[in-house]
Amino acid sequence: MKMAELAQRSGLSVATIKFYIREGLVPSGERTNVNQAAYSESHVTRLRLIRALTQVARLSLEQVREVLSETDEFPTLRDAMGYAQDLVIGEVTTEPEYSPTAVATLEAAVKERKREIERDGKSYASAVRAIEALELEGVGEILAAIPEYAKAADEVARIDLSAMATIVELDALDDTIRSVVVGLALRDPLMRALTLLAQHHHQALM
Amino acid sequence: MKMAELAQRSGLSVATIKFYIREGLVPSGERTNVNQAAYSESHVTRLRLIRALTQVARLSLEQVREVLSETDEFPTLRDAMGYAQDLVIGEVTTEPEYSPTAVATLEAAVKERKREIERDGKSYASAVRAIEALELEGVGEILAAIPEYAKAADEVARIDLSAMATIVELDALDDTIRSVVVGLALRDPLMRALTLLAQHHHQALM
Repeated sequence: MKMAELAQRSGLSVATIKFYIREGLVPSGERTNVNQAAYSESHVTRLRLIRALTQVARLSLEQVREVLSETDEFPTLRDAMGYAQDLVIGEVTTEPEYSPTAVATLEAAVKERKREIERDGKSYASAVRAIEALELEGVGEILAAIPEYAKAADEVARIDLSAMATIVELDALDDTIRSVVVGLALRDPLMRALTLLAQHHHQALM
Repeated sequence: MKMAELAQRSGLSVATIKFYIREGLVPSGERTNVNQAAYSESHVTRLRLIRALTQVARLSLEQVREVLSETDEFPTLRDAMGYAQDLVIGEVTTEPEYSPTAVATLEAAVKERKREIERDGKSYASAVRAIEALELEGVGEILAAIPEYAKAADEVARIDLSAMATIVELDALDDTIRSVVVGLALRDPLMRALTLLAQHHHQALM
């Protein structure tokens, strides 16, 4: 197919596609004459995936490049999960120190789940920062529901790990690692969207 | 306090704080002499909240300005929830058309929950886009778990709406609307972080 059709089918502008080709994220088309190249279905697939990772999973181009590269940068499944978790969390400030009440709220909710907590990671920092902000803004109703949210989060993580365990059983390690990273990066916006769809339903009952 | 202490206590650089003051997101300090101004606790609180909304909830400065403005742009609670949902979803492409299998997967999961679905909104588009990307990448294990994720999402939405109902009962409408918008914008990163914390726990059992 020609560039115009590739743009239409991938939902990206010609300028964006040319940029991705220059950046090496997508292979060049097969040159048919001096001004024209032909593109295949595999170009459409690749561009749609890049679009999803940037627009839906909100990854940077640099992150997309890393995720799609065929390198074995993540030698173990555990490393791959850690990498995916960092991708999903994004940047988070660990300075200055945490609000003691926010920490206490988080610790109490986790303790109720009877589980260990990893305090050094970005997930912990991100949870504390969100709780601090809810405290600052005085949204006590959400704060009061944190134990319930923690219970629901536990269930989502259980589904995640059960899916990951199936990937590990079925795939070779290279495919496993890529599936884990892409799968967790996309599960985040999926769960967000499903929750908002469910909000519409519950809203109708208010 | 002086600017240096304000920077230290808010976790933001002096340059960033000066930028927010110029942009009108934070009031100026009280001038104490020609080169110096004094800042209060309310400056610390305001800056920390802006930091959380930009870094934790990943809102743009323009969105932060809208959320923090005291205007009554959202005349009803339903409008405020719609606005918060759009903030949380961000940009999503509704062109070109959806993959029929992705739509079928979403519809089947929602039908199982026995609820109505709002097909015109950004949440629907975002869910379909995430499912399409999982299809493209061939992460069938996450796709197979979508009915389970939809069930968990239903529970999160139930907790959200129950918290929102309490806000509505307790606050004046202006406060209600702001609490709903800020609360839902911050609940999203909170739930994400709680889920990743729970993943660590389940990972340890793998």
